[in-house]
Amino acid sequence: MSEPQPPPENVDPAKGPSKSQLKKQAKAAEKAKQTAEKAEKQKVLEQQRTAAEADYAVDFYGALPLNQSQSRTRRERVQLISLSHRDGEAVLFRARVHTSRAQGSKMVFLELRQGAESVQALATITPEKVSKQMVKWISSLTAESIVLVEGVVHKSPEPIKSATVSDVEVHIAKVHLISGIEGRLPFSLDDASRPESELQTNDAQYNRVLLDTRLNNRVIDLRTQTNQAIFKVQGAIGQLFRDYLHANRFVEIHSPKLQGAATESGASVFKVGYFKGNAYLAQSPQLAKQMAIAADFERVYEIGPVFRAEDSNTHRHLTEFIGLDLEMVIEEHYHEVMELLDGLFVSIFRGLREKYKREIDIIGQQFPADEFKWREGPEGTLKLTFNEAVDLLVEDGVSRDILDDINTENEKRLGSIVKAKYDTDYFIIDKFPMGLRPFYTMPDPNDPSISNSYDFFMRGEEILSGAQRIHDAQFLCEKMRNKGVDPESMKDYVNAFRMGCPPHGGGGIGLERVLMLFLKLNNIRRASLFPRDPKRLEP
Amino acid sequence: MSEPQPPPENVDPAKGPSKSQLKKQAKAAEKAKQTAEKAEKQKVLEQQRTAAEADYAVDFYGALPLNQSQSRTRRERVQLISLSHRDGEAVLFRARVHTSRAQGSKMVFLELRQGAESVQALATITPEKVSKQMVKWISSLTAESIVLVEGVVHKSPEPIKSATVSDVEVHIAKVHLISGIEGRLPFSLDDASRPESELQTNDAQYNRVLLDTRLNNRVIDLRTQTNQAIFKVQGAIGQLFRDYLHANRFVEIHSPKLQGAATESGASVFKVGYFKGNAYLAQSPQLAKQMAIAADFERVYEIGPVFRAEDSNTHRHLTEFIGLDLEMVIEEHYHEVMELLDGLFVSIFRGLREKYKREIDIIGQQFPADEFKWREGPEGTLKLTFNEAVDLLVEDGVSRDILDDINTENEKRLGSIVKAKYDTDYFIIDKFPMGLRPFYTMPDPNDPSISNSYDFFMRGEEILSGAQRIHDAQFLCEKMRNKGVDPESMKDYVNAFRMGCPPHGGGGIGLERVLMLFLKLNNIRRASLFPRDPKRLEP
Repeated sequence: MSEPQPPPENVDPAKGPSKSQLKKQAKAAEKAKQTAEKAEKQKVLEQQRTAAEADYAVDFYGALPLNQSQSRTRRERVQLISLSHRDGEAVLFRARVHTSRAQGSKMVFLELRQGAESVQALATITPEKVSKQMVKWISSLTAESIVLVEGVVHKSPEPIKSATVSDVEVHIAKVHLISGIEGRLPFSLDDASRPESELQTNDAQYNRVLLDTRLNNRVIDLRTQTNQAIFKVQGAIGQLFRDYLHANRFVEIHSPKLQGAATESGASVFKVGYFKGNAYLAQSPQLAKQMAIAADFERVYEIGPVFRAEDSNTHRHLTEFIGLDLEMVIEEHYHEVMELLDGLFVSIFRGLREKYKREIDIIGQQFPADEFKWREGPEGTLKLTFNEAVDLLVEDGVSRDILDDINTENEKRLGSIVKAKYDTDYFIIDKFPMGLRPFYTMPDPNDPSISNSYDFFMRGEEILSGAQRIHDAQFLCEKMRNKGVDPESMKDYVNAFRMGCPPHGGGGIGLERVLMLFLKLNNIRRASLFPRDPKRLEP
Repeated sequence: MSEPQPPPENVDPAKGPSKSQLKKQAKAAEKAKQTAEKAEKQKVLEQQRTAAEADYAVDFYGALPLNQSQSRTRRERVQLISLSHRDGEAVLFRARVHTSRAQGSKMVFLELRQGAESVQALATITPEKVSKQMVKWISSLTAESIVLVEGVVHKSPEPIKSATVSDVEVHIAKVHLISGIEGRLPFSLDDASRPESELQTNDAQYNRVLLDTRLNNRVIDLRTQTNQAIFKVQGAIGQLFRDYLHANRFVEIHSPKLQGAATESGASVFKVGYFKGNAYLAQSPQLAKQMAIAADFERVYEIGPVFRAEDSNTHRHLTEFIGLDLEMVIEEHYHEVMELLDGLFVSIFRGLREKYKREIDIIGQQFPADEFKWREGPEGTLKLTFNEAVDLLVEDGVSRDILDDINTENEKRLGSIVKAKYDTDYFIIDKFPMGLRPFYTMPDPNDPSISNSYDFFMRGEEILSGAQRIHDAQFLCEKMRNKGVDPESMKDYVNAFRMGCPPHGGGGIGLERVLMLFLKLNNIRRASLFPRDPKRLEP
């Protein structure tokens, strides 16, 4: 509070001030009060700043020791995202230099990044605080260097468009280099962040960063705001998957990726040298999760790598990807499993929409996409039988002769038909022909040519395949022989069912596919941290 | 409510009843009321039962159709654990036959299991309900068959010791076989559940089930209550790990297990045939998680398989195990990482003690163990430097000459010394000699022969190894060359640091080791669902 003011000299105390005098007086008092408050605040900030400087007795600029682990001041280093709420505070934080631009010789602007967030900072020559040399040194910081910044947060007069924390800027008191860069960046982060639409319509105008260049330099590529958001959403999908399953009595398991025999389908299995013999990489946790059911685990899930030795370089195949797998006991009908899986997907979609809108919007700026749609009304998720799906394609002009199976192209077409007719990007196809499914699939009780199996689709691409499995050892052996698999080659698996196993079913989801299709990233490599395909084993 | 009663005949209405008459009268009224209530309840139960039977019009016993997916009655099938709260209810549930014992020709007792829970059920010949044939058929059910049971829950007059749900039993109305067994069980579940202490003191008395026999028939072995509990605790450790890290701003990542080069340590890497070339299985996500830090992910964790081609058949080595890995940016000092890891472990220990006491007690019956102890007072976790640990061993009589490193035997000894002196099963050793750590370890700023690294111990065995890493490319290359590693062979890894990387550190935890040591299971194979070692690739 400011002191009470004596009346101004030109006022007759008996008569009292006039109205306009009163107004002026009030204004002056207000101004004096503000000035005093500002001075007080400045004093406090100055004290803070001085205290901070005393705490941290090194040069105002220069490189920090490599090791860093010298002493612990325990001074808080703040997150960029919190700066909006720190107007007037003296702050200390670590950030990466996105750009450094000198304005004349007295001032320098830094755009600083921390993960997906960014803020503007500036340094101006100030006696005894910021020297000419310091401004020059800051101007010379190369993009992607990492610095420790000390300064005061100021509300910005207008929003800073280039920064995600756009309502404040930082007035720099000190800058120290934590980590410099050696050599040239393979591409600029700005080039790597251009919207795909701009690239398509106006290629010549920008330095287009090709996918291969990005992947060869993935560590740099992953630093874009888009990629930071993509992998936050990837983590969220895993978390939503687990949350839903824990709420539904599932237990997490970890099954071995090293197998004694090439199982499920011999052709696409990687062979591993294992001491004096060989092992094979699991193509899925299929056998192990079924064995867990035979071992009374009731409901299990696993999140882990699966390996496919398929020599296909498409936009949707990886040789190693993350499988979200589950398996559960069936009480009455395999639709219990299909409905649980449906509930799981809807829960993931809702969780993403509710909690990750900001990330989805950021990604949408680089990869424009119609918002992902699913049916949320009482009618629930669209479920077609395989035959109904075929009929839709035939109605649309596809020849029934080629529809014993629905190939990738027709899957896409079906997705468009369904979208036009039912306004959904997500649906289920149930009851696939037995011939299209693996030997362990349970046939329909009324028609042995049809199976109790289903695929789930997002934007016209398969993201889950699942079924009721055969839990009877004799019946399983019969089906194995029909498909040319020797039951003896999968002895442990078959034996698991000889000692009593409840009816069960499940499904396997490709994490990267769900991520790619929800966000419309158009290539699965963008949904994998360090993707692996037949031609890529690095980085 | 029962109707009001007329006064009994032997009472003079004018005089009124005597005290003892009053007592008798009250008793009779109470009894009549109870009888009426019981009859009413019985009637309701009977109605329920009849309704249930009408719903489910199949034979009272016999086998259900193999497929099951015929129709959906949507009748609730209850969990065994809920039966305690269902006294008097007609219930339907699926369970495994643990034992079936006929008592004369009119009665049969079943011990039924569902996961880790069990309950007693019985069937008695009752006209028009339970036939002689049915009792005979139930008596013939083999152990480990799976059945669908319908019956009424009755409070048990005394606790049934053999069952986990011990306060009720089920009076059977119907039983159907869901899945029978084919052939002989390799061992009985009762034999597989005997306390290890009994086996040690009195081997001859029981059929001891050897570990190898168990692992060869793991699906049966996993059905014991102990194993059901062990894998619930395994899932809990993973969940507690994630919960703590999410609360501390970590993001989950998934890094590839297929690597282009044999990295970290060439000798113990599995080689994979990869199309026309080779790949190698990752020995840890070390390189990838550090690259994620260089890619601005700030704090990351991964739960996934790690592969070690070490030909060691010890109680604590597997060729494939689950790594709980994390990596984070260091602001000032690597002790930030060490302290976070300590907080993580304490949070896991507390979570297990608070939420999994029942499971820990169950496991303790088969694997007796002193309760796991850690320091919870204000003094916090015991932290020794490597040199202090060596001094403790020397004091205890170990020759200093052999203590350049602390071998497995001396680790155990140190664990005992620490337990005796500090009453804790959990402690940290900090500041290992540089020579004992991998090339990417950051040296101490004041003594280059010492490193900024630590190991964590439980019951005298290492469960975590971690350190500050070198984030400077040039310094890293120098250290690589000193250890005979060609930087060119790890180009992508080294390059990640050339483009600016903050100081960082982390650690890797072996999930199975934590599980084994917390519960004192004595062999790591018991902590792995389907363990892999140099001699075991199956099941």
